[in-house]
Amino acid sequence: MRVSFDELKDAFDKALVKAGLSEDRAKLCAQLFTENQCDGVYSHGLNRFPSLMSHIASGQIDVHSEPECTKALGVVEQWDGKMGLGQVNAHVAMGRAIEVAKEHGMGCVGLSNTNHWMRAGAYGLQAADAGCIGMCWTNTTVLMPPWGAEGKRIGNNPMVMSIPRDGGHLLLDMAMSQYSNGKLEILKQRGEDLPLAGGYDSEGNLTCDPGAILDSKRALPIGYWKGSALAVMLDVLAAVISGGLSTHQIAAQGSEYAVSQTYIALDVTSLVGQGVREQIVNNVVNDLQEAGEDVRYPGAGMLRIREESLELGVVVDEGQWNDLLKMG
Amino acid sequence: MRVSFDELKDAFDKALVKAGLSEDRAKLCAQLFTENQCDGVYSHGLNRFPSLMSHIASGQIDVHSEPECTKALGVVEQWDGKMGLGQVNAHVAMGRAIEVAKEHGMGCVGLSNTNHWMRAGAYGLQAADAGCIGMCWTNTTVLMPPWGAEGKRIGNNPMVMSIPRDGGHLLLDMAMSQYSNGKLEILKQRGEDLPLAGGYDSEGNLTCDPGAILDSKRALPIGYWKGSALAVMLDVLAAVISGGLSTHQIAAQGSEYAVSQTYIALDVTSLVGQGVREQIVNNVVNDLQEAGEDVRYPGAGMLRIREESLELGVVVDEGQWNDLLKMG
Repeated sequence: MRVSFDELKDAFDKALVKAGLSEDRAKLCAQLFTENQCDGVYSHGLNRFPSLMSHIASGQIDVHSEPECTKALGVVEQWDGKMGLGQVNAHVAMGRAIEVAKEHGMGCVGLSNTNHWMRAGAYGLQAADAGCIGMCWTNTTVLMPPWGAEGKRIGNNPMVMSIPRDGGHLLLDMAMSQYSNGKLEILKQRGEDLPLAGGYDSEGNLTCDPGAILDSKRALPIGYWKGSALAVMLDVLAAVISGGLSTHQIAAQGSEYAVSQTYIALDVTSLVGQGVREQIVNNVVNDLQEAGEDVRYPGAGMLRIREESLELGVVVDEGQWNDLLKMG
Repeated sequence: MRVSFDELKDAFDKALVKAGLSEDRAKLCAQLFTENQCDGVYSHGLNRFPSLMSHIASGQIDVHSEPECTKALGVVEQWDGKMGLGQVNAHVAMGRAIEVAKEHGMGCVGLSNTNHWMRAGAYGLQAADAGCIGMCWTNTTVLMPPWGAEGKRIGNNPMVMSIPRDGGHLLLDMAMSQYSNGKLEILKQRGEDLPLAGGYDSEGNLTCDPGAILDSKRALPIGYWKGSALAVMLDVLAAVISGGLSTHQIAAQGSEYAVSQTYIALDVTSLVGQGVREQIVNNVVNDLQEAGEDVRYPGAGMLRIREESLELGVVVDEGQWNDLLKMG
């Protein structure tokens, strides 16, 4: 079924206010959750909302806590997320990186001690909306084996890059695993195979069977050794820039909290001017579009779903939608 | 066969001086080529040297040209490489990013109109040697199809991340193709298959046969659609930050020159102090080493080969070595 953007946002908002968030914070989180669902990122819209609510209820997330800048070195700052709302902390951190970029060309914030930011790409879009190139990444708990090992020991550490464009921003939002656990679970339920091998079975053979990968816990990093190495680098970068925990320390806590993140903004619009920026970006987009209908520039799929959602209503699972209404 | 580091460096130096480089520039390029070979990056040591020499001889590379800062916005600068030596331009650009980082925490240089920088990782090591996190990437001519297409249209756009560490820097140096053309050619000559599928054959099937991939020109991006999207983002970022050419414009020239690059340095040692930095980085390295002998942190392989090269001499191909001596 479909509901309107505003209807969905109001429902999120009511539930968040009831959970104890201030009016401003509820509004921001409701906006982000609704945009995630509207853009087709269903894994981090309605689907993830109950887990946020339960972490608020359990006290793991402190809805009143304010992130704080604890150290600055020129355009680089360290912020302590104080175990507050992951989305609020992320929005403040990218907002601060943008503010520094507007003044000095580029800004960087390392954020420690924060919670799940839901959809990574949201903060790339935040930078692009401000005319900035955005880059951000987070570490996670252990989710896959490093190349050469069998046991889970590294995160899938989603990384985002965004480039502003009047006709729709370019956005890359990708985890270092070839498929997310959520994707594997959905395909297993449907009895479908993966289109391409996504991990190993328990005998150590590459497989397209999502159930076999969930059993072995051996999801494949993108590009085998390359994605494994990139995941390690992103983890260390996030930890060292923020002064926070790295993946194996997060895993040692038993559940995923107090993660480390990095936010970078670069004011490309002031650097080259809006006209030149559009020309360079559109040049590449047009060249890709000439390659055929099946070729998409990063962000094209999101834009198509967003337009459809705004015209026809946002797709929601009926059960999840009814659950949300009950929370409000 | 093996030759000593200094012997190899002297031979590169003589050949470069004879090709018309100033004493300083010959020394820098000889040092970089020798380090590449010493670290086991044989694809960008002796192996690539003749191609540099022929580009100098043909006048594509101007050995006297000086890169120039053409625009600055706070900590972000645009430099024109003026079709000079790729290694010299890269070294100047990362050097400038480091200089800005030492003053303002972070620095970024976009470099347009430059030539092949040989080993990408060299400039990551340069940042790490200065106590900085380094990030840099380059675009290239068209080398693989974007996901969903059959014809070559995007670059393999190597990307580097480095993190300083007293016991040996962490270094990621990776192209967006699963295997380089050089690797495919070497394995084809030896009659060996790839360990994992590296592209499509002419009928559109994934294959481990390097010859079939070279014939179809359909090398596989790391992580399929993910590496394809990352390659596109790196291309646009390099072009828009430097104001230079993007991959399809480079390809339209007929041969690969006037590429665009991005250099970022972040002075992490001043940010957190050397002791804290070592502790955070070593924590992750130690955790990976516990996973078993086959698990390597990014940069571990390089360090092992470097130590062996410095102890026993640098491995050289006898034919390539004799050719180098003749050039001096």
